Amino acid sequence: MIILSLNCGSSSVKYRLYNFDERATLATGVVERVSIGQSYIQQSALGRDPFKLAYECPTHREAIKLIIDTLLDPKIGVIDDLAKISAVGHRMVHGGEKFTKSVKITPETIETFKSLYSLAPLHNPPNVLGVEAALHVLPHIPHVAIMDTAWHQTMPPSSYMYALPYEWYEKYGVRRYGFHGTSFLYVAKRAALLLGKDPFDCNLVCLHIGNGVSANAIKKGVSFDTSMGLTPLEGLIMGTRAGDHDAAIDLMMMEKEGISPSKMNDLLNKKSGLLGITGKYADRRDIEKAADGGDARAKLAIEIEAYRIKKYIGGYSAAIGGADAIIFTAGVGEMSDLIRAKSLEGLEFMGIKLDPAKNRLATTRNAETEISAADSAVKIFVIPTDEERVYIEDVIAILEGTYDEHTRFTYRFQSPDYVNSQREQDFARECQTKPGLAAIQVKPKK
Amino acid sequence: MIILSLNCGSSSVKYRLYNFDERATLATGVVERVSIGQSYIQQSALGRDPFKLAYECPTHREAIKLIIDTLLDPKIGVIDDLAKISAVGHRMVHGGEKFTKSVKITPETIETFKSLYSLAPLHNPPNVLGVEAALHVLPHIPHVAIMDTAWHQTMPPSSYMYALPYEWYEKYGVRRYGFHGTSFLYVAKRAALLLGKDPFDCNLVCLHIGNGVSANAIKKGVSFDTSMGLTPLEGLIMGTRAGDHDAAIDLMMMEKEGISPSKMNDLLNKKSGLLGITGKYADRRDIEKAADGGDARAKLAIEIEAYRIKKYIGGYSAAIGGADAIIFTAGVGEMSDLIRAKSLEGLEFMGIKLDPAKNRLATTRNAETEISAADSAVKIFVIPTDEERVYIEDVIAILEGTYDEHTRFTYRFQSPDYVNSQREQDFARECQTKPGLAAIQVKPKK
Repeated sequence: MIILSLNCGSSSVKYRLYNFDERATLATGVVERVSIGQSYIQQSALGRDPFKLAYECPTHREAIKLIIDTLLDPKIGVIDDLAKISAVGHRMVHGGEKFTKSVKITPETIETFKSLYSLAPLHNPPNVLGVEAALHVLPHIPHVAIMDTAWHQTMPPSSYMYALPYEWYEKYGVRRYGFHGTSFLYVAKRAALLLGKDPFDCNLVCLHIGNGVSANAIKKGVSFDTSMGLTPLEGLIMGTRAGDHDAAIDLMMMEKEGISPSKMNDLLNKKSGLLGITGKYADRRDIEKAADGGDARAKLAIEIEAYRIKKYIGGYSAAIGGADAIIFTAGVGEMSDLIRAKSLEGLEFMGIKLDPAKNRLATTRNAETEISAADSAVKIFVIPTDEERVYIEDVIAILEGTYDEHTRFTYRFQSPDYVNSQREQDFARECQTKPGLAAIQVKPKK
Repeated sequence: MIILSLNCGSSSVKYRLYNFDERATLATGVVERVSIGQSYIQQSALGRDPFKLAYECPTHREAIKLIIDTLLDPKIGVIDDLAKISAVGHRMVHGGEKFTKSVKITPETIETFKSLYSLAPLHNPPNVLGVEAALHVLPHIPHVAIMDTAWHQTMPPSSYMYALPYEWYEKYGVRRYGFHGTSFLYVAKRAALLLGKDPFDCNLVCLHIGNGVSANAIKKGVSFDTSMGLTPLEGLIMGTRAGDHDAAIDLMMMEKEGISPSKMNDLLNKKSGLLGITGKYADRRDIEKAADGGDARAKLAIEIEAYRIKKYIGGYSAAIGGADAIIFTAGVGEMSDLIRAKSLEGLEFMGIKLDPAKNRLATTRNAETEISAADSAVKIFVIPTDEERVYIEDVIAILEGTYDEHTRFTYRFQSPDYVNSQREQDFARECQTKPGLAAIQVKPKK
């Protein structure tokens, strides 16, 4: 069965075509600059040169049509018949309190997503635009919505309620929702396997450290607390997001510099975080390089990022009464031995002890690695995340009628003999080592 | 030597007259509603009925004159000669990065405090008003400033820098300063004594839980991190302050309801926290009572307050590589066995184990108590704070020329044989048990 997964932003559509039976990604790509002019598509497929093509997409509908045309193209495509695509999985950022699991998309679910616009004004409207466009282009197959927030709906009120006027919760749904749910679900299930334990018997602290960063305290296999809040701004320091800070600062700066709420939101989400501290870099590779070259603010950025992660490891371990394992995932979590080492320094008193040599070796996205010392009471794992694997399995399970709440459901990737196919591993390796797409010339489609 | 300590808010002046040689408070009181009309003074002194008197104070100058008149009054006063007051200690909230210790007040220090107005617009202007008024009323004796922030100036940049645009730090001094410094100083020094260790060899996590609430991670005897930030809004949940929350919520609510930055600041500082959650109560005694009576939101408020404290205990223990002791202080920290018990639940994995019976007994402000179990690796102490003892000692040491940075200075209350005088203990007990002042009729001064 072949599944198309779509992730629609306000001006981009990311996609992946996946053959479930062969456990292999057929193609992955993105349409950028949708609706803002000079849009283009770029696609990678195993054993092919990366492909980039300029094509105007005034709306998401043209973008999704372009993706389908590209996937079917005799020269650069990967399938020969549209009917081979069995279903579409859509990433929806915000499911509010309405969705605790993935759902088949119906006119009613679309209405519910629209009712959540005010909670996620940046994310849900383009998500819904994408769903409507995809329903128009591919009307005869099922579409499924997978929410970032669904995983965190098990949190107790003491984790999700803020100490803010209670009527904000009643009137606007102001509470902690959390994000990165599919990533945490995936690594938590895999960690249980590595621990040799029932997933609903595991206490875990997971760190998803990419451009976006969040932590998840998992108690008895389900989400107990998480660092992102109503929006992804809260919590750990990110590439360009501030994370935790004194909210009175924002109000003071708004008054001092005459900044509007939406402009301040922009500054906190796009000009803060590691970019704010360094003044130049949001990418950890650039920051580590600059720090090596003596850049004091780059060094400071690394110190602050790791220190804040350490505090969350301590805080969340306390929240769940001690963890069986600490898990690092996503780009930086999987590849930066420096950030991992610094954030774990001095935690021996709580049974967390790193093996420095193992940690230094764990810098690939292709292997699950234990990096704790042999005598560490708490295991430390590096687990490459695979959110799209969750999307695909949710879609398949909904098609097959076997799907249930994640508090009960067992994924196929929880099988002890589950491994990525050789082809998938080759593709992942190729994507990592291929020269960047930036160098490829954009040419207009005939 | 008799010292007067003053704490000037925008419409109140709190005071205490202390006889250092007799280790006894002579009187303590407050002038309320200064400059806003219907002002009055109330004063307590050992063995006397509490006293309350209406008297108009259009400015802080009248308020300080009223305090002096009251202290000297033949019937209700406690001294017979103004010349007996040797010096005045002023509590200054915000010392910015300029002050790392208490200082004698000169025209230059006043100018420096004025340069910090923009950092602490609510606190420093009335503090300076108070200093200027006191200098006018008592021009012939030394005045000393004691800053809440000075204690925290030992924090490293990784603790005090935010992941915000760096130029906000350069241009406006936007960073973490922290508050409750004199309280943390006092309990940290006392804890070292209880631990039988050199204070500069102690790692501590201190919880100051009153109407304002903050946590302090202390590494090798000095402040390493603290939960309040540029302002007292950040960190733990307080009576009416929100503490940590997703700053994007504020911006969303400002847009939705057309709220200005200063109005939002007001909502976050005065209508949030425990009052926000319960809708009714900021006082923990009211909340515990309501929770006992079945009020679901009061129960939730207790859960959230304790849970957030627990996360800080875990996070700060991680920050300092493990604590020798956890310390609870200030009204709620000293008296609520419920909040202490809940916030320490499940921390055995990090060597923190409460003795429930000892905890239940520690509900007085008159004794330092160890409440950890005999086999707890980390000690847990309840230590009644005494910020004014620090003010007084700083003033005396500056007068005597023996004062130095708190990273070197030894206070007299660090002596193994230091105890509060019997008279002071009696007074504290009396203040606790006396019927509230609210019942006393306010009568205009003849």
